[in-house]
Amino acid sequence: MLETLTVQTTRRAELIDITDRIAAVIRGSDITSGIAVCYVPHTTAGLTIQENADPDVTADILYKLDALVPRDDPRFRHAEGNSDAHIKASLIGSSVTLVVRASALVLGTWQAIYFCEFDGPRSRHVHVKLLRG
Amino acid sequence: MLETLTVQTTRRAELIDITDRIAAVIRGSDITSGIAVCYVPHTTAGLTIQENADPDVTADILYKLDALVPRDDPRFRHAEGNSDAHIKASLIGSSVTLVVRASALVLGTWQAIYFCEFDGPRSRHVHVKLLRG
Amino acid sequence: MLETLTVQTTRRAELIDITDRIAAVIRGSDITSGIAVCYVPHTTAGLTIQENADPDVTADILYKLDALVPRDDPRFRHAEGNSDAHIKASLIGSSVTLVVRASALVLGTWQAIYFCEFDGPRSRHVHVKLLRG
Repeated sequence: MLETLTVQTTRRAELIDITDRIAAVIRGSDITSGIAVCYVPHTTAGLTIQENADPDVTADILYKLDALVPRDDPRFRHAEGNSDAHIKASLIGSSVTLVVRASALVLGTWQAIYFCEFDGPRSRHVHVKLLRG
Repeated sequence: MLETLTVQTTRRAELIDITDRIAAVIRGSDITSGIAVCYVPHTTAGLTIQENADPDVTADILYKLDALVPRDDPRFRHAEGNSDAHIKASLIGSSVTLVVRASALVLGTWQAIYFCEFDGPRSRHVHVKLLRG
Repeated sequence: MLETLTVQTTRRAELIDITDRIAAVIRGSDITSGIAVCYVPHTTAGLTIQENADPDVTADILYKLDALVPRDDPRFRHAEGNSDAHIKASLIGSSVTLVVRASALVLGTWQAIYFCEFDGPRSRHVHVKLLRG
């Protein structure tokens, strides 16, 4: 089963918790056990699994990615001015694979699934592909 | 099939080879062909595939991750003092997906599966989900 | 179904678009819907999904990875002199998981699958494992 979520981002860079929306896709399907492949069809955004208890964690991730890959590096050639976003997307990755059991995500106590916007604000998509097994 | 391994780490940061334990899970299952999704339910640890021939490789990875993301960055806000571990976990990733053929992992000559501890020592878990195909 | 591609690289570091070859593997199989796990059995190479419209994007990625992880770091211990390539491989990751629908890859408008060589030139492999679902 393949379903596509729309995520509206509101800043150039932000991490948005989409755990509940992915859990709802699973609950709405007839797949009770297997895996969920969450996939971003963009080249300046990604997906990561991180802590959702303290919002300072995602703030620190965005701060550090910016410190490592500043947007205004004069050696970037790509004319659109968003090479930093492409690089951050490749470092974070464009998909996460999750375990599904009893129609629910198998997540750690502090884990949430974050959509990582690196070149917004934009309207984005996340594909959720469920495999039975 | 879903099985959970326990990994006891002994230092703040270390890479622990868990290849043999994952191979044993596969041998103990009735799935001879498919994929193995290995998943860490933690936000300050990850999984990576790397060389196991020379221990200097994993030492160099830990050294470089520390150099890129030092623990004592005064701009980190997260009060627990382990923002570096969260960031390293997101850079490395919380899962690896492996190919299974003839009841064995399809690995390259030098490849091993490493549990990456970034905020230990702790007792950690790794979920191993097998899909037939 | 498991098929293995050979990729000949021609420089120490380069990103090679292998999208068409992976699409051909899918078209040549009897799996019309599911996932494709693409896996590199090497520890100094990886796979990433990135933009293929402007070659400056991949050039900027290679430049920045070199800036973050220079080859000649005197603190590297690994005697082969390619610790940078191992670290880049772990940051980028050794596999990508893609969605297959109607016998085709589900990719975003600008997305391509890149083989990432970090210690070439060499003859390399990419395993493509298809799972129905």
